[in-house]
Order: sequence, then structure tokens, then C-alpha cells
Amino acid sequence: MGILYNQVADQLQELIRDGVYRDGDRLPGVRMLSRQFGVSISTILQAHQTLEARGFLQARERSGYFVRLPAVDAPEPVMRRHRSRPVPVSAREMTLDLCADEQKRMVPLATAIPHPDYLPLRQIQQSTLWAARRGLETLDYAFPGKESFRRQIAQRMATLGVPITPDDVLATNGAQEAIILALRAVTQPGDIVAVESPSFPGILQALEVVGLKVIEIPTHPSEGLSLEGLQLALEQWPLKACVVVTNHSNPMGARMSDERKKQLVSMLAAANVPLIEDDIYGDLYHSGDRPRPAKAFDRTDSVIYCSSFSKTISPGLRLGWMVPGRFMASARQHKYFVNLATSSIPQMAVAHFLEQGGYDRYLRSARQHYRESTERLRTAVARSFPEGTAVSRPQGGFVLWVQLPDGVSGTRVYQKARAESINVAPGLMFSTANKYENCLRLNSANPWSERIEQAVARLGAMAHEDQAARD
Amino acid sequence: MGILYNQVADQLQELIRDGVYRDGDRLPGVRMLSRQFGVSISTILQAHQTLEARGFLQARERSGYFVRLPAVDAPEPVMRRHRSRPVPVSAREMTLDLCADEQKRMVPLATAIPHPDYLPLRQIQQSTLWAARRGLETLDYAFPGKESFRRQIAQRMATLGVPITPDDVLATNGAQEAIILALRAVTQPGDIVAVESPSFPGILQALEVVGLKVIEIPTHPSEGLSLEGLQLALEQWPLKACVVVTNHSNPMGARMSDERKKQLVSMLAAANVPLIEDDIYGDLYHSGDRPRPAKAFDRTDSVIYCSSFSKTISPGLRLGWMVPGRFMASARQHKYFVNLATSSIPQMAVAHFLEQGGYDRYLRSARQHYRESTERLRTAVARSFPEGTAVSRPQGGFVLWVQLPDGVSGTRVYQKARAESINVAPGLMFSTANKYENCLRLNSANPWSERIEQAVARLGAMAHEDQAARD
Repeated sequence: MGILYNQVADQLQELIRDGVYRDGDRLPGVRMLSRQFGVSISTILQAHQTLEARGFLQARERSGYFVRLPAVDAPEPVMRRHRSRPVPVSAREMTLDLCADEQKRMVPLATAIPHPDYLPLRQIQQSTLWAARRGLETLDYAFPGKESFRRQIAQRMATLGVPITPDDVLATNGAQEAIILALRAVTQPGDIVAVESPSFPGILQALEVVGLKVIEIPTHPSEGLSLEGLQLALEQWPLKACVVVTNHSNPMGARMSDERKKQLVSMLAAANVPLIEDDIYGDLYHSGDRPRPAKAFDRTDSVIYCSSFSKTISPGLRLGWMVPGRFMASARQHKYFVNLATSSIPQMAVAHFLEQGGYDRYLRSARQHYRESTERLRTAVARSFPEGTAVSRPQGGFVLWVQLPDGVSGTRVYQKARAESINVAPGLMFSTANKYENCLRLNSANPWSERIEQAVARLGAMAHEDQAARD
Repeated sequence: MGILYNQVADQLQELIRDGVYRDGDRLPGVRMLSRQFGVSISTILQAHQTLEARGFLQARERSGYFVRLPAVDAPEPVMRRHRSRPVPVSAREMTLDLCADEQKRMVPLATAIPHPDYLPLRQIQQSTLWAARRGLETLDYAFPGKESFRRQIAQRMATLGVPITPDDVLATNGAQEAIILALRAVTQPGDIVAVESPSFPGILQALEVVGLKVIEIPTHPSEGLSLEGLQLALEQWPLKACVVVTNHSNPMGARMSDERKKQLVSMLAAANVPLIEDDIYGDLYHSGDRPRPAKAFDRTDSVIYCSSFSKTISPGLRLGWMVPGRFMASARQHKYFVNLATSSIPQMAVAHFLEQGGYDRYLRSARQHYRESTERLRTAVARSFPEGTAVSRPQGGFVLWVQLPDGVSGTRVYQKARAESINVAPGLMFSTANKYENCLRLNSANPWSERIEQAVARLGAMAHEDQAARD
């Protein structure tokens, strides 16, 4: 027996080395391998354990055995320590309509959009059919939000350590609108607002919509916003708000620890500066438990919590929400001013889906997929890109932040890639001050495919060419 | 025979005088009356014609005979000729959350919302079910709008004399958002924009959102915006845009004639000032043909057309659109900034409904209903309110503008009415300058009922009391 399972392990190892099973591939099931090798299932299981011990396979709960991804040699990006001055936001030149219809035929590595294969299509369809049959309820204005939706949100928020009632919830057209309403509620045009750097472009655009100045705070690739940087800014400028993606921030995937969230909340409370928290990636943690939002540590009701289902259930619903706390009256009025209410059917459908209880089950599989697809893309980037390239190690979500070696231009790579129908997000989008010219953000939500593999190889080659042209 | 039908007519007239059939009531069908009076159908028809000639009945095509509403003695409001200076808009104090959940139990005379009984519930439900079954399409971002929706809009716009392609259409969360995007596309904060006076509060709120100054142009209750007033404003102030509800303007129901629309368009084109046209009530004309939008007379691509299905198919869809013409690039970018895209399912459902062809059939019955309900409410107001009250004669839509005698306060009536759970819109909402303190706007979309009748009687009594207290 001992000899037999070792023989099977050797043969499997050879198949891996020959590329029959490639990095990240799932091995066939034990029954199938048992037939294939003509051995018992327990022999196959022993062979698997042997290969796991040798570092070739990786077991994943309820999913079977996978070819282990090689340790990636790319380092994490380092935090850029910079001192900034507040500047008016003009995101015009850096908005590139990355998700317009025209771009839908390109290799989709640009936008932070979940992949359709991993959305809960069947469940949301069932819930939408249910909602459509409700008749008159679907036609009614839903200001400040459908009660059923707000109740489900209140229930979920309670599980995150934020005990609220449905009346504390305002339904919005996605988190983007929630952030704009939050900014309107606590600032006047011309005010200064602190954001992470690199920053999600939507937040910079929100600041532009409201006519605000921005100060960019250095952000650590895994620990998140620099509290020291924020403290400096608080001492130096009359900040009126601070916008932070606390969990799996876009573009770097950083997650602030509970300890740092507490410090963030109390620092801002001491300075009487509201925190606008964007938690859209919170549900998509790659391991461990659901991270808490900063709002859970909010003792002075000064955190405006914003989120949406665009990264989990579907971007096409355009359904988000906010918990504005003591700024509710103002946020509510601004919502009424900008478009009166959020469409009823999506709210009813999502409320039904949440009530049915399928959301958490769905999240489990989505999280596993995004963890794997992100790891896989990270490995591919590390292999294809020039030495000296750094790649983020996101702790959730589905984007990667790629920092090219000094002097290599993310913008040029972006332009060349578009000419080959590969869509990526150039680093310059993530700052008002052109700080990230040598960076790219890649969407890691896609299931692995030949097409993605080749696109990454091409991007790496373009970065090499750009480096060579500079030398 | 001659004697017989006269006898029947006399008896019917008596029933009307005794209140068995009341103003606006539909008479039973000819077959039923024929049985009831024991006479032939042709005798009934002759009796009807006799009563029509006497002014007691009114025939309506395909609907039968109705008790004629008495000629209303209330005059139309007169146009207020006023000279204004541009002022910053602060709509805060006049926003009263008229359509928040809390108000849903009140008698609904405040908001300009269609009545649920007259929405195409069955059709939109069918179309929503159809859309829900489309699967992945429903989950996808729809920027700048679902192609199927934009195509249907382009087809409808062509019938209004505006030949465009689907690429000329931007889907929005209702017309309110479209107006805000239009303002953002053509103005900078601090700019001066001309609007009608009295003005739809949503337009004033839109101006506030964008940080604009307003100049209010006198508006005739049936002919619409004063072109002379606009000319004066153009000569005196550096206007950057002019926002007009060209067809059945809210609150007065005015409709500009084609001739005046042409003049409006050419005056503004000559001054290089874009026209933002809000046409949400265009489909709800009470008689004649669908009035054309001003956009149909636009030779310089300077009219930004905005509309929505909130007054026709359903307010809960939050689905509108705009045709920004040469301002498309900017409008599109602002849409992306504020909330990325409009929810997919409502767009797909409405596109399907329009494609199926049921929309025009539905509109025919909705128009007839709103014409009748508006006429009926107008009669009731004329009867109940103090002498000297003027009431608008809208040519479409479903709101009435009530101008109380000098010194009677619309705000006080509004406050007293709320204490009795009757919701009306006070005149002060329709201007930044408190010009319409003695006015009220009433929603005339409701089907006639004891509850509405009593509410109007109470409002009239309150106005009488307010007048008496002043004397």
C-alpha cells in the first residue's frame, strides 16, 4: 500500500510538472482518479496528502484538491509617505468611462466589477420575479426607502455590531450616491476633505461633484490609512470630513484592524470631523471573519456608514444604502433633491433575497472564488512583469494594485493595452496629483482563462518594453 | 314618441336635480335605462340628446353620458408681472417632504403623483416579469442606458418631431436627475438660470443642488412663460440656462403654443443660452393632439430635453431620460460621477412595455381620467372656496393652482389642513421669493370620492375662516 500511494503521488506530480494540471487547477475528484489509476479511493486520498506535504497540492474545504500556486516573488507596494496640500478636485481628465458599453468587448481588467459567473443570478431572479408579482407596491415612490429593505439592512447591520432600526437607513442608488449625500450633509463647497491615497476614483469624483478640496493621506497597502498622516492633516488643515474604505480598500485591498478603526474613529471624533465610511467590500473578506466597520466603534454618532450590493449581488441593481446617524435629516433632504427616491423593484427584490437567507451561502462561495482568482492573477503578474514590480496582497475584494519599477509608465501600458483590446485602470486615476503614474489597477474577479492569462502576459511584455525603451 | 322621450328626459333631469346622479357621474348604460324606463333604446338616446341640448348631460366618446359639470365661476389666476433679481436658491425651508412615508395616510392632495388606480399596473407587471426572466442582462451595469430602452425612447421622440438615435439618449433616475445633469453640463456654480414663476419646486431644488442663482420669469396660467419677461431678463443678466416645463407646466398647467415654443427656442439660441426643457406632462394632454416639445423646433442643438415615466407609468420606477444634444459628453460624465448608471430592470421593463405597444392605449384612458378628475376638482374648489378665489384651467397633467383672495394665507390653510390629515402644497414652495403666499397647489389625479369631496369642502371652510379672521 505504502508503495502504491507513493507511485500514484509521483505520477500526479509528473502530470503537474508537465503542465497537464496547471497552477491553480482543480484535480479531478477522488472517484475519477481512483478509476483512472485503478487504485482504491483511500490510496488516492493518501497520494493527495503526500503531494500536499510535498507542497504541490492544496486542499480546500468542500472543493477538493488544487495544484498549489507557487509562492509569488513580487513584494507588496510600499506606502508612499508624502505631504500634500489641499487641492480642488478635477477628475475630468482622468475619467475614462472604463465601464461604458464600448469597453464591454475588451479583456475586462479595468473596472472593479464582480464577474457575472459569480453573481447569485438564480436567487436574485427568483426574488425579482417575486417582487414583480407584488403589484402596486412596485409602482409606489419609496422615499426614504422600502420598509422591507430598510428592515433587512438594519438586521444585517446589527450583526456587524451596529444596532440600528429601519428608520436609521436611507436607500440610495449605489454607494457612490451615498457618499455624495454624506459629503453634502457635512460640508460646504470649498471645504477640505481627507481621503486615502491611492484613492478610489469614485470618491475623488464625488468630491468634485460637491465642489470640495481634497487632501490625500498616505495609505499602507495592507494596514490602510496612515493615522499619523491623518493626524498631521488634522493639525494643519480645517478638515470637514474624512472618507475611508475601511475594509479591503480599493485599489490596494488594505483592511484596517479593529484597533486602528477605533483609533481612527476617536481621533476624528476628538477633532469633530465626521467619518464617511465606505464598506462595499466588507462582505468579500478572503479569510477569517467578517471585519467590523468603523461604525461599530462609533460612540458619538459621527460615522456615516455607506455601502451597496454592487460588488456582491449585482452592479446593475444600482442599490446601496447609508446610515447617516445624526446627519439623517440633511442626507434625507439631499436624497429627495437629487432624485427623490431609489427604484422600488430592486429594493423589494434584495429585501426578499436577504429574507430568504440565501445571501450568506452565496457569499461563502463568492469569497472563495475571489480569493482564488485574486491569488492566481497575483501569481501571473509576478511572473510576467519586470523585476522590481510590486503587487498588493489584498485581504478581500477583487482588485490588485500593481506598482511598476521606477520610470515605467502605467499610462503608456494602459494606452498600449487598449490598442490590443485589454482594458486596465492606469494609476493616474487614483490621485489628483498624478502620484501613481507607475501604477496599474487590475480587476481580479474574472475566472481564470486562456484569454486572461494571455492578456496578463501581454501586459507584462508591455511593461518590459516600456522599461527597455527607457533604459 | 316625441312626448315619450321628453318625459324620459324630464324624469332624468329630476333625478339629476335631486342629486341621485351627481355632477360628473356617469349615467347607466342605454340598455339599462331602457329597461328601467320601459322604453326603447332609441327613446333613451333621444332623451339623452335632449338633456345634452339642455346642458345637463355631456357625451364622451366610447364612455357614454355624464352629468355635465356646472360652469365653474372661479376665474383663472392672473399672471403676476414682477421684476426679479437673481438670488441664490435655498429651498431648505420650503421642502416639506410631501411624499415621505409618514404622509401616506393623509388625504393626498399635495404631491403631483399619479393615482395608483390609473397606472398601467397589469402591463408593467407583465413587462417586469418578462425583464426579470432575462437573467444576466438584469445584473449588468447599464451605462449610459440599456440599448433597448434608448431605442424605444428614440422611436417615441421621432413621433414628437425629434429625430434622434439611441446614442442620443441618456437614461436617468427620473427627470429630476436629468435636470440636474443638464444644469451641471451647461453652468458653473454661481451662474444665473431663468425659470418659470410659479416654479415646480423640484427645479428650484435642482438649482440649489448645483449652487445656482435663479431669476423667476412671470408665467401666464395658460400660455406659459412670458417671452417678454424672458427677453428683459436676457437683456439684464448673463443667463447661463433657462429651465421650462413647456407642456402642462406644474403648478399651473400652462401649455406654450407651437408659435411661442419656436420664439422661445430662437430667442434663447440668439442669446446663446441653452434651454433645458422638462416635458414630463407632455403625454397627459387633456384634449387635441400630443403637443410638441420645444426640442422639435431646435435648429442649433441647444435644447436639452428631459422627461420621465414618473407621471405616466409609475413614480416608483424612478426612470427618466434626457436628450442632451451637443452637451452629451458632459451630461454623460456627470451621470457617471453621481451614480454611474440607472437601474437595469426598470429600463428593461419599460422598453418591453413600449415595444408591446400598450403604452398609447393606456395613455388614452389615463388622459381621459385626468381630464375628468381635474375638471371635477376644479368645480369643487370653485364651490367651496371664498369668492375671489381663482383656479387654473390646466390643459394637461393633474394639478390645480388655487389663488386665494388677497390676504388669505395658503400657508395657514396648509398647516390647518395637515392637522386634519389633509395634505396640500402651500404656494410658498413655488418660488424663492415668497411670491405665492396666498396660493395652494392641489393634486387632481385622485378618483372622485367622498373623502376627497369632504377634504375640499374642509379646505374651502379653512380658507373662509382665514379670510374671516383677517377681516
